[in-house]
Amino acid sequence: MSTNNEPKGTAAIHRPAKADDFSEWYNVLIDQAGLSDKRYPIKGMNVWTPYGWKTMRLMDSLLREQMEGTDHDEVCFPLLIPEDQFQKEADHIKGFADGVYWVTHGGLNPLEVKLLLRPTSETAMYPMFALWIRSHQDLPLKTFQIVNTFRYETHQTRSFIRVREIHFFESHTCHTTFEDAQAQIAEDLEVMKILGEQMCIPYLALQRPDWDKFPGADYTIGIDAYMPSGKTLQLASIHQYKDNFSKPYDITYETEDGEHKHVHQTTYGMSERLLGAIVGLHGDDKGLALPPNIAPFQVAIVPILAKGKADLVMPQCEKLAEELKQAGIRVELDDRDLRPGKKFFHWELKGVPLRMELGPRDIENDVVMAARRDTGEKIQITRADIAKTAIDLLESIRVNMLEKARTILTNALVEVFTMQDVTDLEGIGKGYWCSEEACGTKVEDETELSLIGFDPDHNGEGSCVVCGNKGTRMAYFARTY
Amino acid sequence: MSTNNEPKGTAAIHRPAKADDFSEWYNVLIDQAGLSDKRYPIKGMNVWTPYGWKTMRLMDSLLREQMEGTDHDEVCFPLLIPEDQFQKEADHIKGFADGVYWVTHGGLNPLEVKLLLRPTSETAMYPMFALWIRSHQDLPLKTFQIVNTFRYETHQTRSFIRVREIHFFESHTCHTTFEDAQAQIAEDLEVMKILGEQMCIPYLALQRPDWDKFPGADYTIGIDAYMPSGKTLQLASIHQYKDNFSKPYDITYETEDGEHKHVHQTTYGMSERLLGAIVGLHGDDKGLALPPNIAPFQVAIVPILAKGKADLVMPQCEKLAEELKQAGIRVELDDRDLRPGKKFFHWELKGVPLRMELGPRDIENDVVMAARRDTGEKIQITRADIAKTAIDLLESIRVNMLEKARTILTNALVEVFTMQDVTDLEGIGKGYWCSEEACGTKVEDETELSLIGFDPDHNGEGSCVVCGNKGTRMAYFARTY
Repeated sequence: MSTNNEPKGTAAIHRPAKADDFSEWYNVLIDQAGLSDKRYPIKGMNVWTPYGWKTMRLMDSLLREQMEGTDHDEVCFPLLIPEDQFQKEADHIKGFADGVYWVTHGGLNPLEVKLLLRPTSETAMYPMFALWIRSHQDLPLKTFQIVNTFRYETHQTRSFIRVREIHFFESHTCHTTFEDAQAQIAEDLEVMKILGEQMCIPYLALQRPDWDKFPGADYTIGIDAYMPSGKTLQLASIHQYKDNFSKPYDITYETEDGEHKHVHQTTYGMSERLLGAIVGLHGDDKGLALPPNIAPFQVAIVPILAKGKADLVMPQCEKLAEELKQAGIRVELDDRDLRPGKKFFHWELKGVPLRMELGPRDIENDVVMAARRDTGEKIQITRADIAKTAIDLLESIRVNMLEKARTILTNALVEVFTMQDVTDLEGIGKGYWCSEEACGTKVEDETELSLIGFDPDHNGEGSCVVCGNKGTRMAYFARTY
Repeated sequence: MSTNNEPKGTAAIHRPAKADDFSEWYNVLIDQAGLSDKRYPIKGMNVWTPYGWKTMRLMDSLLREQMEGTDHDEVCFPLLIPEDQFQKEADHIKGFADGVYWVTHGGLNPLEVKLLLRPTSETAMYPMFALWIRSHQDLPLKTFQIVNTFRYETHQTRSFIRVREIHFFESHTCHTTFEDAQAQIAEDLEVMKILGEQMCIPYLALQRPDWDKFPGADYTIGIDAYMPSGKTLQLASIHQYKDNFSKPYDITYETEDGEHKHVHQTTYGMSERLLGAIVGLHGDDKGLALPPNIAPFQVAIVPILAKGKADLVMPQCEKLAEELKQAGIRVELDDRDLRPGKKFFHWELKGVPLRMELGPRDIENDVVMAARRDTGEKIQITRADIAKTAIDLLESIRVNMLEKARTILTNALVEVFTMQDVTDLEGIGKGYWCSEEACGTKVEDETELSLIGFDPDHNGEGSCVVCGNKGTRMAYFARTY
């Protein structure tokens, strides 16, 4: 990967300290690290530059690995959805009518049926599922796709977090019974757990209140990360549809007894926000810090070329790079004609987890110097064990990054008992809720926070933080993106 | 990969013999083999079903491998292009104005600037290239993307061959000089050669006549396969743009001497038509025949379960599958509760290059029975050498498939000397041309054929097939898709 095809002219822009101005720090860092270019002439439709796209594709690979391990088949449905198909599920249309792009013309001709750009693919897929599913033997049907989706976003846009063209993962499943669909949701949560660990993203999995569930869903579980801005960011969501879609789309199967029944459905969605969370959670004033599992380069090798010793050092660096590659490590040997200090700066900005330096003295002593991006720690490694040590170090970096982010999330959680507590909150509040929508509305009206959801597994009761009546739900309150 | 998520209800449709009705054979085979489902409610926007998508993604991997080996960086640009950006290069707009989809509304609001769905990405990329390129050090810039593109197709659609949403590969490069851009085109042709060999697709690489070049290009090289229908199918095209786009899009670089010059550009496009060609060239009355390099399953293992011997056979089949997997072969063990004959039929339809059968007697004799999809030949393989033999057989199948298709192309080429020869043609005609557009027009007006291009490297002269005047170009005449 060359570094040619990257945003130019951003190096000179001042990047504030993360602690001083998170929002501006985030925007400038994404430019400077070359993840994405937002100067495309449509606001909120950004260009994936090589480094960002490579990172995103590595994240997609982790998703695909999970999908393969859970017997999901990858498909790819058309982008455009005819208006009449879209309008079959009433709540669903209401939820999206204002937020979609409409294709009205082909060439100079108005189209007979308007087409919309998928905001998500229920209404594209389900007419086909109705054709694909005949009998209980066709179930479960487990599919997913990784595609571009679109929202006509009227709020201010932000790279990866709020965009108008979204790099999107969506799995769609059909089952014979509600219970089977529930088991699917349990599987989705397990997949989320693994992905969160691989990508070093801790999160809350909360059931959304009814007024905030996905249009058409029976219930929605939102997956929220906690960003250093003090806001939660929804990264993913898992939906139980019951037969809410299978009825209007007539997706039925024949049981063993010859009865015809509607299928139960679930979906699971995730987006490029995962990358936004990684930038926000792990970046620092030096630049990005990418989790080893998704870093395009896991190790950057910087030759230390003492005068007259270049002939000695470069072949050793090449040998080192080759050895690491053989061990399955993504490695870049930085042979540019630049001072080592400049290279260190560059790879720190890029968030490469492990930097290695090799100079004449290291070669003499049979060692390699390594520097961890997560801690800044410098480590002398015995040359002989290099590949094994590098693999262990990368794993240790992953664990440390995850733990650090977990601590931030844990520390942000505050028990709340009164509306005043909610109003004063800096992090995420936890407190009882009576389950009434009025109390949720009150929080939104009177504070900057929302009731983002409740723990579906909580057992216990207490006084509702808002109205003081008895509540059995442990609700979470937060500022949100 | 399960076979649940596949078109149902197509098994009963009669598939004519390939030789009797190629067109209908092609359509029905794609349904029955589960490559794609064309019952989506928008004509020409088809659903990639799991088997087809897996095949296409394997083809994409081969492309990516070539791009990586030639230092192209993968990017991903937005789908939507503002009308004003699109209109900067005059010929380009003229070429596409009737054929694009227009987004005119976001939600209920008319958009200030209409947006079009990319038919190809020159006009999306080049405003950004103008920002990315500053100096000669930023060149060459070599990028590619694999994305969905759109054409408002008014002709009859056909899976993979003529669709309205196209799975598309496009590389875009910028260079300091015309000569560097020419060298890029030579590299593209070399990549095409490798891909053609891997995918078992022989082709002609012809320079298109000027009236048929890409809108905005200086010249276009078309890559055409010859389909058993007797028509050529354009699979790919390579374009020299000179500075035709860099002038209106103001893509300049500073030379070492401080001068500002416009870059020279090339593009290289390929689409899902590659898969259409494979279906058409290699399929037969039994079904698909997939080249080993792109087959989702390279080997299908069918256990032969003699009565009371299942306990013996299945573990041996699993061991065999594991051994092949370890050797990097994509293998499927078909443990379904079906008669072997049904399974043979299934895997032949799916085009799996190599079938293996293993029964009690084979185990006793330390052999495996193999059947080649390309020749139907049955081979007894020594169990001990199985992985190596399988790899050799797959390579032998690839070479044989390529050779067979090459022979068909070579046999289709006929020398032509007169308009009567062209009119009577069944295959592809080769003959001299005086380079006048009028002669090309005459061919199109008076026959079913077109002058599809000429050999850019030909040396020689003769009488123009059409007008009889002196001609130095060796032109090709064919029916086309």
